Amino acid sequence: MSNIAKGLEGVLFTESKLTFINGSEGILTHLGIPIQEWAEKSTFEELSLALLDGELPTAEELARFDADLKANRAIPDQLVQLIRDMPKGVHPMQALRTAVSYLGLLDAQAEDVTPEARRAISIRLIAQFSTIIAAINRAQEGQDIVPPRADLTHAGNYLYMLTGKEPTAEQARLFDIALVLHADHGMNASTFTAIATSSTLSDMYSCMVSAIGALKGPLHGGANEAVMDMLDEIGTVDKAEAYITKKLDNKEKIMGVGHRVYKNFDPRSRVLRDYAEVVANKEGKSDYYQILETIEKIIVDRIGAKGIYPNVDFYSGTVYSDLGIKKEYFTPIFALARISGWCASVIEYSRDNRLLRPDAVYTGATDAHYVEMQDRK
Amino acid sequence: MSNIAKGLEGVLFTESKLTFINGSEGILTHLGIPIQEWAEKSTFEELSLALLDGELPTAEELARFDADLKANRAIPDQLVQLIRDMPKGVHPMQALRTAVSYLGLLDAQAEDVTPEARRAISIRLIAQFSTIIAAINRAQEGQDIVPPRADLTHAGNYLYMLTGKEPTAEQARLFDIALVLHADHGMNASTFTAIATSSTLSDMYSCMVSAIGALKGPLHGGANEAVMDMLDEIGTVDKAEAYITKKLDNKEKIMGVGHRVYKNFDPRSRVLRDYAEVVANKEGKSDYYQILETIEKIIVDRIGAKGIYPNVDFYSGTVYSDLGIKKEYFTPIFALARISGWCASVIEYSRDNRLLRPDAVYTGATDAHYVEMQDRK
Repeated sequence: MSNIAKGLEGVLFTESKLTFINGSEGILTHLGIPIQEWAEKSTFEELSLALLDGELPTAEELARFDADLKANRAIPDQLVQLIRDMPKGVHPMQALRTAVSYLGLLDAQAEDVTPEARRAISIRLIAQFSTIIAAINRAQEGQDIVPPRADLTHAGNYLYMLTGKEPTAEQARLFDIALVLHADHGMNASTFTAIATSSTLSDMYSCMVSAIGALKGPLHGGANEAVMDMLDEIGTVDKAEAYITKKLDNKEKIMGVGHRVYKNFDPRSRVLRDYAEVVANKEGKSDYYQILETIEKIIVDRIGAKGIYPNVDFYSGTVYSDLGIKKEYFTPIFALARISGWCASVIEYSRDNRLLRPDAVYTGATDAHYVEMQDRK
Repeated sequence: MSNIAKGLEGVLFTESKLTFINGSEGILTHLGIPIQEWAEKSTFEELSLALLDGELPTAEELARFDADLKANRAIPDQLVQLIRDMPKGVHPMQALRTAVSYLGLLDAQAEDVTPEARRAISIRLIAQFSTIIAAINRAQEGQDIVPPRADLTHAGNYLYMLTGKEPTAEQARLFDIALVLHADHGMNASTFTAIATSSTLSDMYSCMVSAIGALKGPLHGGANEAVMDMLDEIGTVDKAEAYITKKLDNKEKIMGVGHRVYKNFDPRSRVLRDYAEVVANKEGKSDYYQILETIEKIIVDRIGAKGIYPNVDFYSGTVYSDLGIKKEYFTPIFALARISGWCASVIEYSRDNRLLRPDAVYTGATDAHYVEMQDRK
C-alpha cells in the first residue's frame, strides 16, 4: 500500500539542533560546525559536552566536564564482579547491554528523568561505558581487568585499560578522532530507539540499554566488522586487486563502500583516512592498511564517478585493528562513541516530549469468531 | 512546522495481521476475533500461540506449546543468584530488564534471528518471564524464591510462585483473563520499540529488553499503579463520592478514566469488571473493589455520555491487588502479559524487515565554525 512509510524513511517526527546531514553533498555538521573541524580541532570530550548542552563550552565548562568524566571512570565492585562472572564467549554487545542495565540498579538517581538528572547520569555513563567495555573485553579474554587512570584522555585511557599499556600520543589522538567521527549521526536506528524508550518518560539506563540493543544488529553496528571479515578473506595485499576487480565485475556488494545516506563521499571517511595515513607513515603500514589502500584506489577509479566511495566503516576497522582492538569489539567501540549522541538526543527530545505511537495497517481477518477446539480443522 | 508527525501519530509504518483496534467503536480484535471472546473462551496460553503463529492452533499444537511452556518455566541457577544478589529497593522493571538481558547471555541460541529461532526463544521467554518476575518480587521482599510447578496453568503458576500458595480456580482464571486482556494492543510504544530494535536484525533478548525499558515509563505502563495510588488516597468507601465529585467539578484528571485510543468504552474494561464481580461476589468485596464500584457509578452517570468511561487500568489494579500483587509489580505484570504481543510483533515484522530510520527537521545553526577556546565568549 502506498500510504505506508516503510522504515519510516523520510518521516519527520521531531526537531533537532544537534546534527545536520546532507548526504548528496557529503556534509555532516554538529551544531552547524563541519565534522572535519571537530575532528581536526576538538576532542571527544568537547564534542560530547557540546552535544549535551547544545553549544560550544567555555574553557571552564570543559575543564569541569573533563574532571567529572575522570572522576566517574571507576565502576562499582559489584559490576566488576558481574563482568568477571559472565560466561566466556558471549556476544560483547549482550555483555555491554547487561552491564549497563545492571549499573542502573546501582544508581540511586536512575529514576530521575528531569533533563538535569538525565544530563548528570549521561556524564557518568559516558565515563563508565569506556571502563565497562574495556573490562568486558579483558574479562572475556581471561585477562585481569585494568582500572582506569585519571591522567589520560578519554580515548587514551580506553586504550590503556584495553591493553594495559599507555598508548603513544598519536595512537590516543587517532582513537580520539575515531570517537569524534562516530559520536553522533542524526536519527539513526539506535538513537531513534533510545528516543522511543525515553518517550514513555522511562529512565536513562533503559534508553541506553535499548540503544545498545538496536546498535547490536548487523544492519546498524556491524558494518566495520564486516569490512574486517573481508580483509581477512582477502588475506594478503597481492590478492586485493583480483578480489575487488572480481567483485566489481560481478556487481557484488563490497563491504564498507557506499552509504544509505551519503551519495557523495562520506565526510568522516576522508578525515579518518588522512589521520590513519599519518600514523601509518610513522608506525609502519599494517597489512590491513596496505590492502585498504589498494582497494580504495580501485574503487575510486572504477565507481567513484557514480558517487560510490569508501565510507567511514571502510577505514575505522583498520584503524581499530591497528590500535589493538579485535573486530568483535568494533560494535562496542561504536557504542563507546555514540553514547554521547544517544544521551544528547534523549535529553533534547525529553525537553518537548511526545509519546511515540505510530500505527500499522491492519491486513488480517475481520469479523472472525473464536472456534471451539473440537470444531477446528 | 506542519510537516512534523509529532509522536508519529497517525503514521503507518508497516502492515500487521495481529490486532485491530477501532477506538471510536470500542473494538479490539486479535486475528479478527473480538477480545471479549478471547477472554471468555480462551486462555493466555492459547492467545499467545495464536499471536505467535497468526492463527488459531489445533488441539495438538496447543498441547505441545503448553508442554513447551511448562518445560521451560525454570530459570538457570546463575540467574536466580543474580536476582537474589540485586540490591533491595530497586525498581522492579530495572530488575526485570537486567534479568532478561542476563538470560540472553546464557542462551546459546540468542544470536539466531531467523523467524524460527525467534519463535523458539519467544516460547522460552514467555515461560521464563513469569518465573523471573515472581522471583524478583519475592527476593526484593526478602522471601525465598518459589520454584515453578508444571501442573498449574501459566496464570495459576505465577500466583503460586508469588505467594507460595496454590490459588483457587477462580483466582487463577481471573488472572488468566487479565493476562489475555493485556497480551497485545497493536503498535503501542513498547511493541514499537521492540520492533525498532529488531529492525537492525538485533536478537530477541535485545528486543525484549528494549520493550521492557519502554514499558517502564509512566506514560505507558504505570497507569494502573496510578489508579491504586488514587484508591489509597481516597482511603475508605465513604469518602469516594466526595473525592470524585470534587475532581469532576474541578475538571481534574481522574486516573483510569478515558483512553487515548478508546473514545467509547474500553472493551477490555467491561470483561475484567464482569469477571472481577463474579470473584468479588464469591470471595467477598475488598475495600478497593467497593471504592471502584462507587467511582464507576458516578463516572458513568456524569460523563459517560461524553464517551469517557473507566478503562482497563481502572479495574486491573484492583484485581491484581485482590490477588495479592503489590502495586509496584503492576508494570512487571503488564510485561508478563504483553511479552506475547512483543514477540509476535517482532516475528511478524522480521518476516519483511525494514530498518527503521525516520528523520528530524534540523533547526540548529548553519555555516558555523569551530571557535578556538581563547576566542569564545
